[in-house]
Amino acid sequence: MRATVMFGAGDVRIETVPDAHLIDPTDALVVVTRAAICGSDLWPYQTMEHSETGRRMGHEFIGVVEAVGAEVRSVKAGDVVVAPFLYSDGTCVFCREGLHTSCIHGGRWGGDDVDAGQGEAVRVPEADGTLVVLPVGADDALMPSLLTLSDVMGTGHHAALAARVGPGRTAAVVGDGAVGLCGVIAARRLGAEQIVLVGRHPDRIALAREFGATDIVSERGDEAVERVRELTGGFGAHSVLECVGHGLSTVTALDIVRPGGAVGRVGLPQEASIPESLPTFFRNVTISGGPAPARAYIEELLPDVLEGRIEPGRVFDRVTDLDGVPDGYRAMNDREAIKVMIEP
Amino acid sequence: MRATVMFGAGDVRIETVPDAHLIDPTDALVVVTRAAICGSDLWPYQTMEHSETGRRMGHEFIGVVEAVGAEVRSVKAGDVVVAPFLYSDGTCVFCREGLHTSCIHGGRWGGDDVDAGQGEAVRVPEADGTLVVLPVGADDALMPSLLTLSDVMGTGHHAALAARVGPGRTAAVVGDGAVGLCGVIAARRLGAEQIVLVGRHPDRIALAREFGATDIVSERGDEAVERVRELTGGFGAHSVLECVGHGLSTVTALDIVRPGGAVGRVGLPQEASIPESLPTFFRNVTISGGPAPARAYIEELLPDVLEGRIEPGRVFDRVTDLDGVPDGYRAMNDREAIKVMIEP
Repeated sequence: MRATVMFGAGDVRIETVPDAHLIDPTDALVVVTRAAICGSDLWPYQTMEHSETGRRMGHEFIGVVEAVGAEVRSVKAGDVVVAPFLYSDGTCVFCREGLHTSCIHGGRWGGDDVDAGQGEAVRVPEADGTLVVLPVGADDALMPSLLTLSDVMGTGHHAALAARVGPGRTAAVVGDGAVGLCGVIAARRLGAEQIVLVGRHPDRIALAREFGATDIVSERGDEAVERVRELTGGFGAHSVLECVGHGLSTVTALDIVRPGGAVGRVGLPQEASIPESLPTFFRNVTISGGPAPARAYIEELLPDVLEGRIEPGRVFDRVTDLDGVPDGYRAMNDREAIKVMIEP
Repeated sequence: MRATVMFGAGDVRIETVPDAHLIDPTDALVVVTRAAICGSDLWPYQTMEHSETGRRMGHEFIGVVEAVGAEVRSVKAGDVVVAPFLYSDGTCVFCREGLHTSCIHGGRWGGDDVDAGQGEAVRVPEADGTLVVLPVGADDALMPSLLTLSDVMGTGHHAALAARVGPGRTAAVVGDGAVGLCGVIAARRLGAEQIVLVGRHPDRIALAREFGATDIVSERGDEAVERVRELTGGFGAHSVLECVGHGLSTVTALDIVRPGGAVGRVGLPQEASIPESLPTFFRNVTISGGPAPARAYIEELLPDVLEGRIEPGRVFDRVTDLDGVPDGYRAMNDREAIKVMIEP
């Protein structure tokens, strides 16, 4: 079968790889109908050292179940399913607490013997715990929004929960990428009364406004901090969603949070330590977040997508087949595209 | 009047200073009957550069109101009162949220024109917001425990809240100083079912066990992490109370928290950044805490002290008059005393 393989920074190719097939009795074999390129795929795209064997890419996908192992109970051949960006058994102590990202038997797509999402098919380990059946056809018009439940919408939701967004609170979202935009959706959905987006790309800002952003701050660094404080009564935002992970964006996030407020970080941290230890201490700031347990959120977010109350699929502004994936990476890396959907 | 002044590292003296007196109509004049030396007083004791004018010391005290300004309503001459370690107006937006440490009109003892607690008397700004009347006589046997409400017990409670201690959760307390010991009391009071103390001083460990610690870990660094994980089912503690603030204790705290758990930090951070950014991110660890809004907690903790359900005053293992304060600093710094109470 054909699948996306990265061989080094800037070097993404569509290769022929061994066909996905059932191995364990808890597996499902899923033929991919939609996949996506993630902002986090751009980190190796920018920095990966050359590898002869390469690395299978993609952790967001929807597909149709083709076959299941003998022990699989919750999905069957023909089901349309969405997979979160990590697989998980659904039964361990962490899954029962809703922290599927720490599943004892879970893992990541593209690891040893595990397929990745940007390809024709995937062997899904722990299928009962991992997959969620979607009550729609494989080509439903809602596919882009449903696909975001695999990662980006769940990640924005996680940022908002970690930042303790709620009615009557002010929220600030640092970053206007697809995660930040989904953070705006999540903040609005959870009742934030003011939502300040810190970002500078006109197309993304326009979408953020449609998603519910009430204010835009396009300055950076100290000027951004000053501007957000002005917009929030001088004190900063109760809830800050850090959706980038860079050193500067992290400093900005920690500087614009109000005393007693919370920063929810979902951008993959690019630094080994968290800055601003003393100022955040003296202001009693809570720092929370991490990889989103997207699996935990699918049931909660799915009705809102199915009934059209949220439209996170609008973050996809480009669609390609597998052959176009390498150029999709380039386009996202060049900020030509917000997020790319793949129809293999 | 006489008061404690620090002139540099290791140089604490009892000096004659201007008598405390009312200045603003919102002031109260309080004659100090009990004060304390704080672990945080040891930071300047170890590092302060020599100063000709010196620095007034002490931020934990109980006293008797001698006079009040024209606008003071909630306390009157003769009242026995406890003061939290910062003064606050009780009416600003942050005080109303219970975050008195960020009070817009608040400040610290020993600052410009403000007396400090380790002396004969104190002008208390914002008396209505700051002071709490105690329903006991000035020499009540409960004085040591009541005095802890000014800081150390409120700080232990804050660490436990920030670490989200609750019934059915496991707690670990890093540090066996007075704050850590009060953290043990707070963790037990909030229902933790297992309380692991990380500390190595036999006298403090014995007291921690009486306060409710179920397990003691006297190793340090990686060995302490390993041991706490063993004691907590391999995953670490749900709630970790960081009661030291050193780089190593912070790393330990962040390494022994369970995925999805929380670290409540109340030890004054000695480093500019928080380590372990990536591991805490991947494990979805929450980092919270800061200076305790002790004022907010007095009403909640006071009944437990008055009715003997908690005895945080047992952390005081030495009592001195003002003349003995310099040796009290030495004794705490040499770990001869856990915490020193002053009867001026």
